[in-house]
Amino acid sequence: MGEAQALAIQAGVGMPVAGVRLAIAAAGIRYQGRDDLVLIEMTEGGSAAAVFTRNQFCAAPVVVAREHLASDLVRYLLINSGNANAGTGDGGMRAARESCLAVASLAGCAMSQVLPFSTGVIGEDLPMLPFQQSIPKLIKELAEDTWEKAAKAIMTTDTRPKLCSVRLELSGGVVTVTGMSKGSGMIRPDMATMLAYVATDALVEQSLLQQILAEAVSPSFNSITVDGDTSTNDACVLLASGASGVPVIEDSPDARALQNAVNEVCMYLASEIVRDGEGATKLVEVLVEGARETGDARAVAYTIAHSPLVKTALFASDPNWGRILAAVGRAGVEQMDINAVRISLDDVSIVRDGGRDPSYREEDGQRVFDQESYQIRVDLGMGEASTRVLTCDLSYDYVKINAEYRS
Amino acid sequence: MGEAQALAIQAGVGMPVAGVRLAIAAAGIRYQGRDDLVLIEMTEGGSAAAVFTRNQFCAAPVVVAREHLASDLVRYLLINSGNANAGTGDGGMRAARESCLAVASLAGCAMSQVLPFSTGVIGEDLPMLPFQQSIPKLIKELAEDTWEKAAKAIMTTDTRPKLCSVRLELSGGVVTVTGMSKGSGMIRPDMATMLAYVATDALVEQSLLQQILAEAVSPSFNSITVDGDTSTNDACVLLASGASGVPVIEDSPDARALQNAVNEVCMYLASEIVRDGEGATKLVEVLVEGARETGDARAVAYTIAHSPLVKTALFASDPNWGRILAAVGRAGVEQMDINAVRISLDDVSIVRDGGRDPSYREEDGQRVFDQESYQIRVDLGMGEASTRVLTCDLSYDYVKINAEYRS
Repeated sequence: MGEAQALAIQAGVGMPVAGVRLAIAAAGIRYQGRDDLVLIEMTEGGSAAAVFTRNQFCAAPVVVAREHLASDLVRYLLINSGNANAGTGDGGMRAARESCLAVASLAGCAMSQVLPFSTGVIGEDLPMLPFQQSIPKLIKELAEDTWEKAAKAIMTTDTRPKLCSVRLELSGGVVTVTGMSKGSGMIRPDMATMLAYVATDALVEQSLLQQILAEAVSPSFNSITVDGDTSTNDACVLLASGASGVPVIEDSPDARALQNAVNEVCMYLASEIVRDGEGATKLVEVLVEGARETGDARAVAYTIAHSPLVKTALFASDPNWGRILAAVGRAGVEQMDINAVRISLDDVSIVRDGGRDPSYREEDGQRVFDQESYQIRVDLGMGEASTRVLTCDLSYDYVKINAEYRS
Repeated sequence: MGEAQALAIQAGVGMPVAGVRLAIAAAGIRYQGRDDLVLIEMTEGGSAAAVFTRNQFCAAPVVVAREHLASDLVRYLLINSGNANAGTGDGGMRAARESCLAVASLAGCAMSQVLPFSTGVIGEDLPMLPFQQSIPKLIKELAEDTWEKAAKAIMTTDTRPKLCSVRLELSGGVVTVTGMSKGSGMIRPDMATMLAYVATDALVEQSLLQQILAEAVSPSFNSITVDGDTSTNDACVLLASGASGVPVIEDSPDARALQNAVNEVCMYLASEIVRDGEGATKLVEVLVEGARETGDARAVAYTIAHSPLVKTALFASDPNWGRILAAVGRAGVEQMDINAVRISLDDVSIVRDGGRDPSYREEDGQRVFDQESYQIRVDLGMGEASTRVLTCDLSYDYVKINAEYRS
């Protein structure tokens, strides 16, 4: 009941969510001739949950959004691309607040009911004129069927929009969950993602909603990495408008069904970010199991996922497993017994008993590495903890994009 | 006395060290038609100190060299390039021991007086035939004036040999310190370097020698990074043949003079490794000061030095300081006050009071980044601890080298 439908995720589709409307504008904040400003409105009576970057140099909009979320009921999200409003000091804080005020004064709500979000170049002042000019139009044009246009407007180095929807039947009726995200570089989210917005029309109390979001981001947005660089602007928001009239109560089968649906949406959006990682040609899952504790498993998984030598081997489709072995060995896991460690590529065993598996043949490793997507599996042989991290390769295009683009 | 000369380091020069002889062979271990095997002999009565990688998947020769060093007096170092003998299990251990035995049986010493070292591709069996064929010739051809040829023979992806010498006058007479190193990729030494050999003809007790080496590697080989990948084979050896007859005693001015000379040699060889980092076009010192403790300073310095976004900006000569700021913010330093953080490029202040320094002009940052070598300086404003890390940029050629070469 519910769960079956939750798995039938509609990739690339942004189904309308009752009680949530979006509008898009080409404000000219940095880019000319493309959409770069999105306003999302949630009907009165809905609830909102959010997680933000743990980067200590977090951007002004992150500071303001946190304050507003803690002090008032959310009605509007205002999102711009092209300028991160990060590293901008007091001027950046003023700009973030002014942009909220511009929405509030026209929409007839309190400034603290508006959450600001920015993504783009760091360290440049956020100009207010594009906001003042575009916000009246945004408020006028709010509509429920504009998710796809919004997903495009929040892109920076992304090559394609990322969105998906799930409909699921709960005991009180059918609800929809739709989400969108952006992100391609400076991706190693820490308790949040680059930018992701998920909305449902289910009726959910704020505390349960926050719980659902926290559970959903851990294996999704918090388990991906492109380049290890945690952004200053990461944020993930979950809105529940309640407009379906379908209530979801803690510890119920409905809550679990909604949790599954939100998990699926977040997993899809997170994997899309890695698949669209800057210059990425491969999507690789690093599974580490048999660890004494999750921290050890994550240390090994991220050491592999961040190793420039491993990532260039992924790019070259070169099953150079010595680089994986070297990464496992330097991950800082104490008292590791290298003779107990096993490393596989999909179902191909490559390392056991401290060296190459005698049964390993280079062509088997090559067959795995020739695929676009596969798994690197490490069993530390020390315990029961495990983790999964999604990553991509390091290609010429990563260097090209980041040597030529200011993010 | 002594210190002045110690600073007059002779870059690129391998002055003979009395009591230390070297021989070189093209053994055909992996490469054809180039030197790939080096034997270093130290006269009887000398002492040796060494530090090794902390990678837990350390190579067979590292395990054997550690054992032999602990149990006997060192007479010979046997170094091959082209094959790391890492990830090779029991067979690799046997090969490392056999190669020592081959030297010992011809040289008339114990097997445990020979230390083996390997560098090159991981995970392939080390063939014994090239050793057996070349060792007789090596023993016959040992000579004092062959450092430059040896420095070339130990190279892998290095584009040039790395060696230097210092002569210094101690109270008992003149001594020489000569060192050579190799390393270009998989460089983030941890308590050692890729491979470095430093020799002196001073007469030094083993305990003092180990102390001198430990002090010298900390700011040099242990403070450099190319790609964050700690190798399985790192080793740094310091030999003191005593052949000059000039004694060096603990806590003496002579000991300090020798320490300075060894420091200078190690600093030069370490900076040469970064300067010759795979694909490197820039040599950048990251200085972090004002930290509460050294661990925090190192966390910030390495987060900057390993950030692919920072490294591609260095490559592009793009003073994109927002990426440096984002790296500082995600380094995991607790209770950091972002308003107290100051970031400079050489003498150009870029960040203060939580954002761009009002006096900063893009052309000033550009002027610094256009240089081949410069400093990124971060003052955390929290305490007195500081650290320096040397790093390089991330270029197309790094990807090219590592997508095409098996290391």
